[in-house]
Amino acid sequence: MGCIVEPMHFADALTERIARTSPVCVGLDPQLGKLPADLPKDCDGVKVFCMGIIDAVSDVASCVKPQLAYFEILGWEGMKVFWEVCAYAKGKDLVVIADGKRNDIGSTCEAYADAYLYEGSPVDALTVSPYLGSDGITPFIQRCTENEKGIYIIVKTSNKSSGELQDLPVGDEVVHEHLAQLVESWGMHHIGPKTNLSCVGAVVGATYPEELKYLRTLMPHIPFLIPGYGAQGGTAEDTKWGFLPDGTGAIVNASRSIIYASEGKDWKEAAGKAAEGMAKELTKILEND
Amino acid sequence: MGCIVEPMHFADALTERIARTSPVCVGLDPQLGKLPADLPKDCDGVKVFCMGIIDAVSDVASCVKPQLAYFEILGWEGMKVFWEVCAYAKGKDLVVIADGKRNDIGSTCEAYADAYLYEGSPVDALTVSPYLGSDGITPFIQRCTENEKGIYIIVKTSNKSSGELQDLPVGDEVVHEHLAQLVESWGMHHIGPKTNLSCVGAVVGATYPEELKYLRTLMPHIPFLIPGYGAQGGTAEDTKWGFLPDGTGAIVNASRSIIYASEGKDWKEAAGKAAEGMAKELTKILEND
Repeated sequence: MGCIVEPMHFADALTERIARTSPVCVGLDPQLGKLPADLPKDCDGVKVFCMGIIDAVSDVASCVKPQLAYFEILGWEGMKVFWEVCAYAKGKDLVVIADGKRNDIGSTCEAYADAYLYEGSPVDALTVSPYLGSDGITPFIQRCTENEKGIYIIVKTSNKSSGELQDLPVGDEVVHEHLAQLVESWGMHHIGPKTNLSCVGAVVGATYPEELKYLRTLMPHIPFLIPGYGAQGGTAEDTKWGFLPDGTGAIVNASRSIIYASEGKDWKEAAGKAAEGMAKELTKILEND
Repeated sequence: MGCIVEPMHFADALTERIARTSPVCVGLDPQLGKLPADLPKDCDGVKVFCMGIIDAVSDVASCVKPQLAYFEILGWEGMKVFWEVCAYAKGKDLVVIADGKRNDIGSTCEAYADAYLYEGSPVDALTVSPYLGSDGITPFIQRCTENEKGIYIIVKTSNKSSGELQDLPVGDEVVHEHLAQLVESWGMHHIGPKTNLSCVGAVVGATYPEELKYLRTLMPHIPFLIPGYGAQGGTAEDTKWGFLPDGTGAIVNASRSIIYASEGKDWKEAAGKAAEGMAKELTKILEND
């Protein structure tokens, strides 16, 4: 007997998955030079590595975030692995966020949307860059609403030089605060019926907790993807400002601190333990609130 | 007897190619629904189409700009075609600019740089988005200097909503003017010995000629890639402000008005004629100055 699963709004499905697991998002950044010693340093090695990490974290993480750059660097063969890895993660009930920071306008933007957010795609959401304005966002949102997918718009990133453009003063605010209000306006009309959260998300780094706190107030309907935890220096405490008062509305990404938790033969177990440890830390922080 | 060609600085090689042909850059945006009737609507059709366009324009255009979105939409098989098309264009002595608007930070940015701008890559330059600041630019510049490649940073785009972020007022200037000065500062130390132009370029749309004129003064060492000509409404007259006084320093992109010049069986000839017509228009404008 078949089972027909009704497609669910991205934010609702994500929130349900988080409730069953944790807000942990595991970044899949498979660098050839960092693969475990027992794996070949090629596409096959990347595939085995990513699938091994997925197996190790799928009980405790809500999402995986494959980083497209590490697949593109392997040529078209790498892109084949990217799609195989996404399908594998999807089969393990993980929410799959393709980190591509794609951006363009008009029909080109539609092509990117169709490339990743088509009906039935193993990719649930795509990260996108905002510099081109709403012409570069609207076509993505259209596909999100049609196919129950999501996007995460880069608002305030975790890197040191993020302020060079993102923190420029614009009147009484700064560029990323202005963008945050645009993101809220783009997203607020595409809310999940269960969660009051949009299919339009925002990337806001954990390394700037004050900004994170303020941006949460500017974007009450926007799910956050918070990078910068772990290797980049952000703590669980730093990330808590990105969550809503009820503890929903955000996922926290860690890549290197989980996937490269051990260089030895125990790399899978170590990744699973690292994800579990992170999940416990986040749960503790959210419960204390 | 073999012939060893010394690698040449990106801007010098580009300028030399323009001198032998024209500042015309042909955008390869192969949409399945728009392919000529005699071609299959699949990867094979895209390959034949792009190669046919390349054959038709290679005597008159200096560059082709394959748009990655239209290859990514075809899955990994499309990426295979992308690389084949780039290699084919390179073999015809065209300068190949991959339009991917890639952007990320640190080792991920390095991965994008290595994916497209590796030594011996058929891709000569890559478009990149600037929202992450210098952390997202420096790794690209490093590969450019090592491998004689180029990047074009999105500064002021040709679309209607480009002003939403790019024109926000920052003190006495606007965001894209501030960025332009950053781009000049990033690029001015990586100048070609023959041209005084950098391997760091800028994308500045033809549809805002006043801005184009002012941005030329802010970025004297930066080669411009000027989109928006043709179907988007920019004229040859509009683009002239992007050139330096000696008529160098810019390429002008047209996509739809060239590659879809005819829907009939004469699509190759029509594309060749459209590119030739555009080259003549640009030459006339530059000679009149």
